[in-house]
Amino acid sequence: MSKSPEEEFPQKAFGWAARDTSGHLSPFKFSRRATGEDDVTFKVMYCGICHSDLHSLKNEWGFSTYPMVPGHEIVGIVTEVGQKVSKFKVGDKVGVGCMVGACHSCDNCSNDLENYCPKMILTYNATYYDGSKTQGGYSDVMVAAERYVVKIPDNLPLDAGAPLLCAGITVYSPLKYYGLSEPGKHVGVVGLGGLGHVAVKFAKAFGVKVTVISTSPAKEKEAIEHLGADSFLVSRNQEQMQAAMSTMDGIIDTVSALHPLLPLIGLLKPHGKLVMVGAPDKPMELPIFPLLMGRKMVAGSAIGGMKETQEMIDFAGKHNITADVEVIPMDYVNTAMERLAKADVRYRFVIDIANTLPKTA
Amino acid sequence: MSKSPEEEFPQKAFGWAARDTSGHLSPFKFSRRATGEDDVTFKVMYCGICHSDLHSLKNEWGFSTYPMVPGHEIVGIVTEVGQKVSKFKVGDKVGVGCMVGACHSCDNCSNDLENYCPKMILTYNATYYDGSKTQGGYSDVMVAAERYVVKIPDNLPLDAGAPLLCAGITVYSPLKYYGLSEPGKHVGVVGLGGLGHVAVKFAKAFGVKVTVISTSPAKEKEAIEHLGADSFLVSRNQEQMQAAMSTMDGIIDTVSALHPLLPLIGLLKPHGKLVMVGAPDKPMELPIFPLLMGRKMVAGSAIGGMKETQEMIDFAGKHNITADVEVIPMDYVNTAMERLAKADVRYRFVIDIANTLPKTA
Repeated sequence: MSKSPEEEFPQKAFGWAARDTSGHLSPFKFSRRATGEDDVTFKVMYCGICHSDLHSLKNEWGFSTYPMVPGHEIVGIVTEVGQKVSKFKVGDKVGVGCMVGACHSCDNCSNDLENYCPKMILTYNATYYDGSKTQGGYSDVMVAAERYVVKIPDNLPLDAGAPLLCAGITVYSPLKYYGLSEPGKHVGVVGLGGLGHVAVKFAKAFGVKVTVISTSPAKEKEAIEHLGADSFLVSRNQEQMQAAMSTMDGIIDTVSALHPLLPLIGLLKPHGKLVMVGAPDKPMELPIFPLLMGRKMVAGSAIGGMKETQEMIDFAGKHNITADVEVIPMDYVNTAMERLAKADVRYRFVIDIANTLPKTA
Repeated sequence: MSKSPEEEFPQKAFGWAARDTSGHLSPFKFSRRATGEDDVTFKVMYCGICHSDLHSLKNEWGFSTYPMVPGHEIVGIVTEVGQKVSKFKVGDKVGVGCMVGACHSCDNCSNDLENYCPKMILTYNATYYDGSKTQGGYSDVMVAAERYVVKIPDNLPLDAGAPLLCAGITVYSPLKYYGLSEPGKHVGVVGLGGLGHVAVKFAKAFGVKVTVISTSPAKEKEAIEHLGADSFLVSRNQEQMQAAMSTMDGIIDTVSALHPLLPLIGLLKPHGKLVMVGAPDKPMELPIFPLLMGRKMVAGSAIGGMKETQEMIDFAGKHNITADVEVIPMDYVNTAMERLAKADVRYRFVIDIANTLPKTA
């Protein structure tokens, strides 16, 4: 008979887990492996709530297993390092994002693109090298291989910095890869949520012109005055959209609900790039003729490799980029999930693990 | 009252034109402008029949005007050059492709990408700078500005070389732009028609591995033995398609009928590029998740600039690349159009203008 989650490994761990597809989270005792020679163990301070946590909890992507401790925007303070660990020491501020392993031998891994390795291991709801189930950051302690741990710059607040580990790299990586980070470029950001608001901040820090495109006219003031966008388009306002045709070098589209791509392709200059980082679960309608006539593309991007994640967070430190967060106690998490499903958050929930999780034991 | 097409300009011209949306072609007397200081006038020897001629004749794209002399794969022998023309002289073998003008001041024009200039002037069914209607190569004489004329290498046969001016550059340009022309790459070619068969030849000449993807198992022998493709996939054979998953750096998709993109995206390696050069008239279904997971893209491309068109045809000359053509007499053109609509041609019709057009006068 296999051991219970609590007895499987030597390090005691406590978190909140979903037990079934209801997605309801409740206190859960489990355990983590001993700190291996390449491992970093840290006390979790904060963990951001990503929209994909919600999808995973409810098994909306079809590969969830339970009990599941979600969370892949995890920050904390190092408490132990393995003997081969060279980049970290006890007391360091560190973070773990969406992945904790990969094959380390394929082309992607060789090029610091572990995120595209076919054997990439997700931070939770996946199977680790040793056959154990990975569990995420809604928990008091985290163990991860050094390669998957990033150093958080000293000036970044841990709570508002946490979402950068997923939301930050998700938008930073395509801005760089698709050549949209060069000063003078004009970048559109579709959707002003967890991803979108961080995309605006990074794009502005790169020195590009940023236009937010949203269905909601009410977000204009926020986009321009608070986030620093240069302009704002209401996607349903045909006059505004028409006037902005062929003006953008690229667009980061963060919206995961189905929406028309044709108007967005129209906003692109010739050779422009529409980059999807949200993941609608149904196919979208793609008009081909407008792609041909302007040599345009619709492309995808998913998080980023570990080297680039460190680069992203260092850049964020240098430019004081953080997410706008609502910090919540652990026992608020189920309510937070309900609000997240209604997009009722500005812009990211972050769980105050260190101060509030122990009280739920 | 405006002058008749026959009297509008000083150079007498004779061709075949469609008079209405039936698309039926018949003999037509018209005229062309005198050879301007930047112009090249040439006797048309051959003109290829592109599938877009068929769409235009029948006004399937909604912007046709009549009478219309189609044809944008035009080759011939120079008979007169304007005083400022420096690249051509009487007797040269030359060609004109899909366009005869552009603004020459925008970013695209400045970067030798006249094909993406918003004011690009099509070779026929468009309005020239002087307000006259452009007429294509199903005619005995052609006048075009030097910038839009390419020199045909001496070793290229004019009949089989003609289709390169549209079909050739349409596949050459994306192979280069999307980084698919480097030796060692693996490129898929979807559809083995006028564009596809030339794509295979160029890709092989670049030294890349080529896999033809077709709905028709009967084309395997042709693709491999005659065109030199390295392998062949029947797109409906799930076993074959599954075995080829994640193996291609890019795909040139020449099919303009609606077809599923998901299996093609699956054939791409991470960071692979699916390039559409056929233009379905309805939107296609685009699954987003597979784009994200492999940082893949679906992109478009339309012909190429004049500098690149010259480069393409020089490359074709060096590597003896021509289209496989069926040369037809002028009075066969309506039958040819019917056959083209049924894809009953291997692979391009070319009209023997010089020998057969005069007999229809």
